[in-house]
Amino acid sequence: MTLSADHIGATLIAYRSKAPLVQCLTNIVAANWTANALLASGASPAMVDNPYEAGLFAGLASGVLINTGTPNTETVDAMRAAVEGANAASTPWVLDPVAVGALPWRTEVAAELITRSPVIVRGNASEISGLSGSGGGRGVDATHSTDEVLEIAKNLATRHHTVVAVSGPVDLITDGERVVRVANGHELMTRVTGVGCALGALMAGFASATGDALLAAASATALLTVAADRAVVGHPGPGTFAVRLIDELTVSADDVVKAVRLS
Amino acid sequence: MTLSADHIGATLIAYRSKAPLVQCLTNIVAANWTANALLASGASPAMVDNPYEAGLFAGLASGVLINTGTPNTETVDAMRAAVEGANAASTPWVLDPVAVGALPWRTEVAAELITRSPVIVRGNASEISGLSGSGGGRGVDATHSTDEVLEIAKNLATRHHTVVAVSGPVDLITDGERVVRVANGHELMTRVTGVGCALGALMAGFASATGDALLAAASATALLTVAADRAVVGHPGPGTFAVRLIDELTVSADDVVKAVRLS
Amino acid sequence: MTLSADHIGATLIAYRSKAPLVQCLTNIVAANWTANALLASGASPAMVDNPYEAGLFAGLASGVLINTGTPNTETVDAMRAAVEGANAASTPWVLDPVAVGALPWRTEVAAELITRSPVIVRGNASEISGLSGSGGGRGVDATHSTDEVLEIAKNLATRHHTVVAVSGPVDLITDGERVVRVANGHELMTRVTGVGCALGALMAGFASATGDALLAAASATALLTVAADRAVVGHPGPGTFAVRLIDELTVSADDVVKAVRLS
Repeated sequence: MTLSADHIGATLIAYRSKAPLVQCLTNIVAANWTANALLASGASPAMVDNPYEAGLFAGLASGVLINTGTPNTETVDAMRAAVEGANAASTPWVLDPVAVGALPWRTEVAAELITRSPVIVRGNASEISGLSGSGGGRGVDATHSTDEVLEIAKNLATRHHTVVAVSGPVDLITDGERVVRVANGHELMTRVTGVGCALGALMAGFASATGDALLAAASATALLTVAADRAVVGHPGPGTFAVRLIDELTVSADDVVKAVRLS
Repeated sequence: MTLSADHIGATLIAYRSKAPLVQCLTNIVAANWTANALLASGASPAMVDNPYEAGLFAGLASGVLINTGTPNTETVDAMRAAVEGANAASTPWVLDPVAVGALPWRTEVAAELITRSPVIVRGNASEISGLSGSGGGRGVDATHSTDEVLEIAKNLATRHHTVVAVSGPVDLITDGERVVRVANGHELMTRVTGVGCALGALMAGFASATGDALLAAASATALLTVAADRAVVGHPGPGTFAVRLIDELTVSADDVVKAVRLS
Repeated sequence: MTLSADHIGATLIAYRSKAPLVQCLTNIVAANWTANALLASGASPAMVDNPYEAGLFAGLASGVLINTGTPNTETVDAMRAAVEGANAASTPWVLDPVAVGALPWRTEVAAELITRSPVIVRGNASEISGLSGSGGGRGVDATHSTDEVLEIAKNLATRHHTVVAVSGPVDLITDGERVVRVANGHELMTRVTGVGCALGALMAGFASATGDALLAAASATALLTVAADRAVVGHPGPGTFAVRLIDELTVSADDVVKAVRLS
């Protein structure tokens, strides 16, 4: 099956109909914006990130995000519990390996977690490269383009039976065989903190609305990047853009179908 | 005494005159928006949430908020210390039992804390129901309407000699005998994260401006929901609404008195 | 050398050319706004605040911010590691002693850290006074004016061979001998949480763009306060002001040079 814009539109409709409950174990920087992005898109956020409740809640949630942006001892324990709970309940979960490759502890944590069946791994090119053991960049910056890491992404997806989504000027998503590119979005997305983190959270919600994780990742990417295209109209500064991007996450499925640029 | 709009106006004037220092032990999602809501309303926030200082600071603060949104081992210790410090100094404190009922650890923590004399307990219908032992909802969503839990709220208030404030389309506030309803506000408030959490923080500030906790809870609710009515003018998206809602928390006492719909 | 507006303009150009990677160990309230302020100004944020990675990352970063807003056991360990790593790699680091003087634990932590060679210490008058052992205010509020603490600031700078930046209606910056005042900015800056915290982060970035820490602190202050002057046009509420202030951090070096009011 080749993914089409209509598949993405139907997935967005299913997502909003389901109103998924997305558990986020994420960082202190992006938590607020991520929660607001989920709410605007039609989902419900729940940031249950302590080790006493994260596993149980992962059994109740529609989808789970594990984001390594600002890990600490207790949240890493919670991540492990959430992954275990998600897997026991067949809750789809997404790994967002923030700054992996550049920093040793989280690189170990992510290397452990990726063996535990995330349905999607989302990062920039440096992080995907770092997660594959090919060396990372300077923190959260993408110093590689997405197509530069196509083979790395495909190999990582194949090795772990997962979907790998590489964020960049053109977003690249692969399950090891199929490759989808989404060419929407704007450079301003890199000047607002947490946009990539929110994309991981959206993917966790979309993964509960379709059994095809490639379609889930592509649909979340389409929603966010089409919203960004709409939010940049009038050339806002980065503060205003961040606010409008939340507004535009309410964009209709029809408008996403018309605007998304797949290849 | 029946609460009137004029009582609320006078309380808002007293609140702004006092400029209360509100200590918040709150979650990583709502901390920023809560601090900005306090500042815009005329109060000063201080998020002292470590166990080494929380108790001492509760003695210096005008009011204290305990919010269970993203608890961890150390912040729960800090909550206990803050409650002890608040009670020793007769500082009013508010309990916001986020997701209580749905999650076991925080339900235990909240069940313990409610016995330690909060002046106000604020939650949505599911949380108030969960706190009373009547079963909770799915995380932070309100799956009950506020009047459905009226008897539960009255019983909880009576049992713990506190005021219970139930947030929803119509906000319901009771001390077990008196019942106040505030019918302002807009559905968009549920599409922005942290609005309810900020309401708990405002209540902690208002509780320092009047000895009548029912009036304090009603006044905070009136301020926030009237501000929301003003912020929705022009049908903003949820991102823009969140920004304007902060702007509108500077609304004058006169305008609150004119707009508030009590029953 | 007397600092001129042209020195500040040249420093801003150098800063943007370098695009410094600024590691922030900061609080849960200001983390998001700080990251967005850094991004808008032309820097890259990285909130690496765990003890396992903070020291190593401080060797890779361009500058480091240590902010005591919401410390906990693990982040304080991370602060110590980051300072050690920064000093080993000659990475400039900035101390922002939030609420020091008012609260005992962080006062001890800050008293320890200031002996470990920060290039800049930034706080409001109460915090600088508290750090010097002269007694602090009520949490994060500035209860002293900046010139009231001029001698305290000069002594603190001299004693620790550092630059002390005191934020207030007129910002005062001293290395113990030279004193620079920046008279831009607006009272609304005190009604938005995290603005001072973001200033500390900007200073850490600017300290990597010039070897003169006084010039770095003055340049960061000029950028933020000139941006604030521009953001208040049209009398926005505090929510809108916070958004516009991020937008205006993209202000050109030329416009900063024209608008800055030094003395």
